[in-house]
Amino acid sequence: MAAKPESNVTAPTRFLRVQGETYAYRRFGGGAGLPLLCLQHFTGTLDNWDPAVTDPLASGREILLFESAGVGRSSGEVPPTIAGMAKHALTFMDGLGVETCDVLGFSLGGMVAQQMALNRPSVFRRMILVGTAPRGGEDIMHLDKPSLARHLSDPKLQGYAVLQKIFFAPSASSQAAGEAFIGRLMQRKAHREPPSGAAVAQAQMASFRDWEQFSGERFADLKRISPPTLVVNGVHDEMIPASNSYRLSEGLPNAVLLIYPDSGHGSLFQFHESFTRQAAAFLASHSPFAPY
Amino acid sequence: MAAKPESNVTAPTRFLRVQGETYAYRRFGGGAGLPLLCLQHFTGTLDNWDPAVTDPLASGREILLFESAGVGRSSGEVPPTIAGMAKHALTFMDGLGVETCDVLGFSLGGMVAQQMALNRPSVFRRMILVGTAPRGGEDIMHLDKPSLARHLSDPKLQGYAVLQKIFFAPSASSQAAGEAFIGRLMQRKAHREPPSGAAVAQAQMASFRDWEQFSGERFADLKRISPPTLVVNGVHDEMIPASNSYRLSEGLPNAVLLIYPDSGHGSLFQFHESFTRQAAAFLASHSPFAPY
Repeated sequence: MAAKPESNVTAPTRFLRVQGETYAYRRFGGGAGLPLLCLQHFTGTLDNWDPAVTDPLASGREILLFESAGVGRSSGEVPPTIAGMAKHALTFMDGLGVETCDVLGFSLGGMVAQQMALNRPSVFRRMILVGTAPRGGEDIMHLDKPSLARHLSDPKLQGYAVLQKIFFAPSASSQAAGEAFIGRLMQRKAHREPPSGAAVAQAQMASFRDWEQFSGERFADLKRISPPTLVVNGVHDEMIPASNSYRLSEGLPNAVLLIYPDSGHGSLFQFHESFTRQAAAFLASHSPFAPY
Repeated sequence: MAAKPESNVTAPTRFLRVQGETYAYRRFGGGAGLPLLCLQHFTGTLDNWDPAVTDPLASGREILLFESAGVGRSSGEVPPTIAGMAKHALTFMDGLGVETCDVLGFSLGGMVAQQMALNRPSVFRRMILVGTAPRGGEDIMHLDKPSLARHLSDPKLQGYAVLQKIFFAPSASSQAAGEAFIGRLMQRKAHREPPSGAAVAQAQMASFRDWEQFSGERFADLKRISPPTLVVNGVHDEMIPASNSYRLSEGLPNAVLLIYPDSGHGSLFQFHESFTRQAAAFLASHSPFAPY
């Protein structure tokens, strides 16, 4: 019998048919911990998960990379709301028969994770929210602002090259980390997902605009998200500024905040050794309190 | 030969005479790390260092608890500025012959540590700044605001009892942690320091008012503090609000920010197991980058 794949470089893409949809996903690794559901960023596919983040975490638990409806080889259309995406993720979990797990939600995926926890409080034991924002957060993914638009409109930046600019800070050290990140994303040679097109981007952008709206007391929903949570961000995040992580830490009843220096939206990729060490220690804890 | 004392419960108070002053201090523990200089909070003496924080850290390095001029049994008068206190601490280091060390600066002590690093950039290898603020920070130790004054003016709260109220959050869990903290401070039975009186409080309060002032670009000084730094706070700190820690993390070029939930100014005492684990991991790192 072949060894169980332990890396996002080699894990096969699987497909789950449930409730009329076919969801693409990958599962690899194993250990004593609950499975870790990984929810992806704007336009990201299964191939956008950095093996330097997923693989060390796979040594203590099963990693579940989920591709939501309309992304990559998953069927259907991208919903224009976070609520719609949360519904797909919960359907996927039900289809797999996973009742409770841990979650790593990055950017858009962190919003989906929050919505899932509101809809079904038992779904997550511990949550890691990276580079994300609460409902009613500020300056969420405004790609037309100059600090981002100058890279997104640069014809010299094709494919992943733009990620090095918009996920990382302008410093030489952060840009070097961005280059290394892109190299790691390219390690997977076979069975890659199709990149997201304009329809995915448009619907997901609509979901950000909706997420910025709130009714009633701002951030009051956060009080109802009770799992111990680790909130992580880069201090120079231009896509979803770190102030949103401050608000998460202030509003969630049981969250530790970890902010990295010299980094942007992709702080978890830049400081992957630190991030995976911190995340593994957080996930290994059985305390009712978030500190680890 | 007696075993070397390894705890602030039993470590003898020592005295160093240098440049016309006599400084009270304690040193205990040992290991591969550089000494960790511990700089104390408003009106705190050597006896206000929680053994649950100092003692675990003493297993990897020597702990140096310093009492500045005019506090406890140190001679002289409390300077009315952070700059004056930084001068005393540097004189003490010179007198001990310690050229470079690590530092844990709590509250007032974190301001002194920042000033020392500005005055003499080589003095600290790594810095831990807890519950403190940059020069020009906001809402620093305004003891007359209602959330603090109601405890400070309560005749039923004598001695350390007031610390349980003003260092900890109002929640039952935080208050219980505060009670345990005070119990630990009382474990030391012999050779305790005299508590600080009104003269100490008045001069230290003047130093806070001065520290709130700034000239030129706000927080620009922070760019010149280059050692890898770990900034820590409780999210509900009423004495020096966590927003000051956000500003430190944003302004320091190489700082990780760690914010604890359900806690106030004394977050390091409430979550002493997590804090000492995080601090030890941070101090054990030899990376030029703060993340650990």
